[in-house]
Amino acid sequence: MTSNISNKAKICPGTFIGDNVIIEDDVYIDYGVIIRDNTTIKSGTYIGARCILNEYTADFFTDRKSYNEKLVIGENSLIRSETIIYGGSIFGNNFQTGHRVTIREKTNIGNHVRVGTLSDIQGHCEIGNYVSLHSNVHIGQKSKIGNFVWIFPYVVLTNDPTPPSSELLGVIIDDFAIIATMSVILPGVRIGKDALVGAGSIVNKDVPELKVAVGNPMKIIGEVQKIKNKITGKEVYPWRYTFERGMPWEGVGYDNWISTKNPSE
Amino acid sequence: MTSNISNKAKICPGTFIGDNVIIEDDVYIDYGVIIRDNTTIKSGTYIGARCILNEYTADFFTDRKSYNEKLVIGENSLIRSETIIYGGSIFGNNFQTGHRVTIREKTNIGNHVRVGTLSDIQGHCEIGNYVSLHSNVHIGQKSKIGNFVWIFPYVVLTNDPTPPSSELLGVIIDDFAIIATMSVILPGVRIGKDALVGAGSIVNKDVPELKVAVGNPMKIIGEVQKIKNKITGKEVYPWRYTFERGMPWEGVGYDNWISTKNPSE
Amino acid sequence: MTSNISNKAKICPGTFIGDNVIIEDDVYIDYGVIIRDNTTIKSGTYIGARCILNEYTADFFTDRKSYNEKLVIGENSLIRSETIIYGGSIFGNNFQTGHRVTIREKTNIGNHVRVGTLSDIQGHCEIGNYVSLHSNVHIGQKSKIGNFVWIFPYVVLTNDPTPPSSELLGVIIDDFAIIATMSVILPGVRIGKDALVGAGSIVNKDVPELKVAVGNPMKIIGEVQKIKNKITGKEVYPWRYTFERGMPWEGVGYDNWISTKNPSE
Repeated sequence: MTSNISNKAKICPGTFIGDNVIIEDDVYIDYGVIIRDNTTIKSGTYIGARCILNEYTADFFTDRKSYNEKLVIGENSLIRSETIIYGGSIFGNNFQTGHRVTIREKTNIGNHVRVGTLSDIQGHCEIGNYVSLHSNVHIGQKSKIGNFVWIFPYVVLTNDPTPPSSELLGVIIDDFAIIATMSVILPGVRIGKDALVGAGSIVNKDVPELKVAVGNPMKIIGEVQKIKNKITGKEVYPWRYTFERGMPWEGVGYDNWISTKNPSE
Repeated sequence: MTSNISNKAKICPGTFIGDNVIIEDDVYIDYGVIIRDNTTIKSGTYIGARCILNEYTADFFTDRKSYNEKLVIGENSLIRSETIIYGGSIFGNNFQTGHRVTIREKTNIGNHVRVGTLSDIQGHCEIGNYVSLHSNVHIGQKSKIGNFVWIFPYVVLTNDPTPPSSELLGVIIDDFAIIATMSVILPGVRIGKDALVGAGSIVNKDVPELKVAVGNPMKIIGEVQKIKNKITGKEVYPWRYTFERGMPWEGVGYDNWISTKNPSE
Repeated sequence: MTSNISNKAKICPGTFIGDNVIIEDDVYIDYGVIIRDNTTIKSGTYIGARCILNEYTADFFTDRKSYNEKLVIGENSLIRSETIIYGGSIFGNNFQTGHRVTIREKTNIGNHVRVGTLSDIQGHCEIGNYVSLHSNVHIGQKSKIGNFVWIFPYVVLTNDPTPPSSELLGVIIDDFAIIATMSVILPGVRIGKDALVGAGSIVNKDVPELKVAVGNPMKIIGEVQKIKNKITGKEVYPWRYTFERGMPWEGVGYDNWISTKNPSE
């Protein structure tokens, strides 16, 4: 099957395009991008220089034939330069990456998700809507991340309770949770809704909803509602009432937004 | 405006050069480098394979036109392969990077600075002279790093006291300070002159001049002058009296060098 | 001396090949690979898109002439895209890397070794057979890693006891040892055979054979034999009796394999 490239797309020199590639209107492909077989790039999306889309999986190395599964990158996405993405995945609209992100196979990602420079998503995991992964975050296989989750630099979500083994237990991160820099979440741990894990924590048990966890090993030290901003002195959490940049409630406030939302969404 | 490329520069195949690019004498550009608009590369500098200089900022994605601000890379610099640098920055002379470094916009860097492989400088920060960032260091926005500072692998300088928020407090690192591997410096913290932060420290308050801080959370455990080299048994700190490789006092000693220095420098 | 490329090798477009390069039968070189002088790629090996093999060392920058030492990549290896490897090294057969691995000069690596995405091996070190480095592992100069060692994401092996200095003390990791995520091994420390270092440990002294170490700073908390799998309830360590995927005893068990092994191997 041949490829189908919109004449309203711009493709810079040095790009290699495989079979069965669909590139919709107003897509912009910068220099030297490699797009392997069975890839769809939806309208309005930008692909930065030297990205590799639908990279070869282990199957390729047996007989050097492509067995790539379908990769769909949603509308109005922004994939920054040198990002490598595998197939078998569907990404929602308005997806953004930093540079040199790696996303392995079978990673399903919702809408309005951002993944920072050098982050490494190991595949076989689920990520909801409006999730922000900062730079250099490592998401192990079998992780499940809800909606409106924030994960900061050098956080690792692990999955093997007795390494090396084949019995993986993924981490679960509930909606609105925040995991600060350089924390490790141990296999099978669940971080509750609105919980906050402080920087440098080694999290070896579940963190309940709205709790603050810090330390190595981590201890629960209180409730998020008691934390105040050092500059303004005001309460900060749950953060959806104090932060709105890039969120769907921007300009209207969380309560107004949620009250007008269709419950079936 | 067209570009101005010295005929004493060497440019390998596969390079893409934008408008208003100045490449001075004895510059060497390796294979496949992308140099976008408004970039100046000063004499004697080497740009490794597949670097991207003056990468597109967020403005570009609105209408896909380049609004790149000026990027100046100083003389006799050595930018190793696959480094990505944004614009709006001036870098001093004798700047060196490892591979795959990312430096975002509005980062001003002095002379004789080294930034190791995979390090990620998030922009909007200041770095002095003779600073050494080792591999995989993360410098958050609004950081201020003095002169002769050493930062070792996997150190993160943070900036958001109540994530997610828009009220960033940068970290300040004073001259001659040393931050060892895998430490996190929390928002707004100041590391004093000649202070030493040990490996794996979570630094949640200021470290005074000449003090040693270690642990999670960090504690001050003593003065740097009491630390001895395990091999030689000799005192080591302040390090400017015991280490000189690559420093301006190499071969003459710190005291001799400082006594002959023009006070206005 | 000119290069010698098998007509049974496949070389994709955009590849740059230097002098004295040997490419054996059934090698597959993907798009845009840079292979500098004095490189040998043995039969059956795959080199991913945009790898750089035998990257320039510091000598190059003095007069921009290549002084590259020999680099040999063993048979049936799989070097994933955007990996950068320096010269002066011999790698065994069945070597595998993830994406964007960096391996500096004078790194000798045995057979069946895997190095994960973004890992950074700083050169001047020794790695045995059947070693698995996961993503984003940092191996300092002068490290010595035995056979059948497992190192997990964001682990750093350091080497400078009083940074900055020129007196480096490498880390030693004995056979079958396991180092979990985000641990730092301090300079000169030895991790004994079959020992297990838990996640987030700062290891400032030796860990004896078969011991479990955790914490910041680390403490010895017991023997590996007492750890049970959370799912099955069975004993797990020493792991060579419970895990065999990819190991030479796969399908026969460790004891059978070792009993039939030639003692001189």
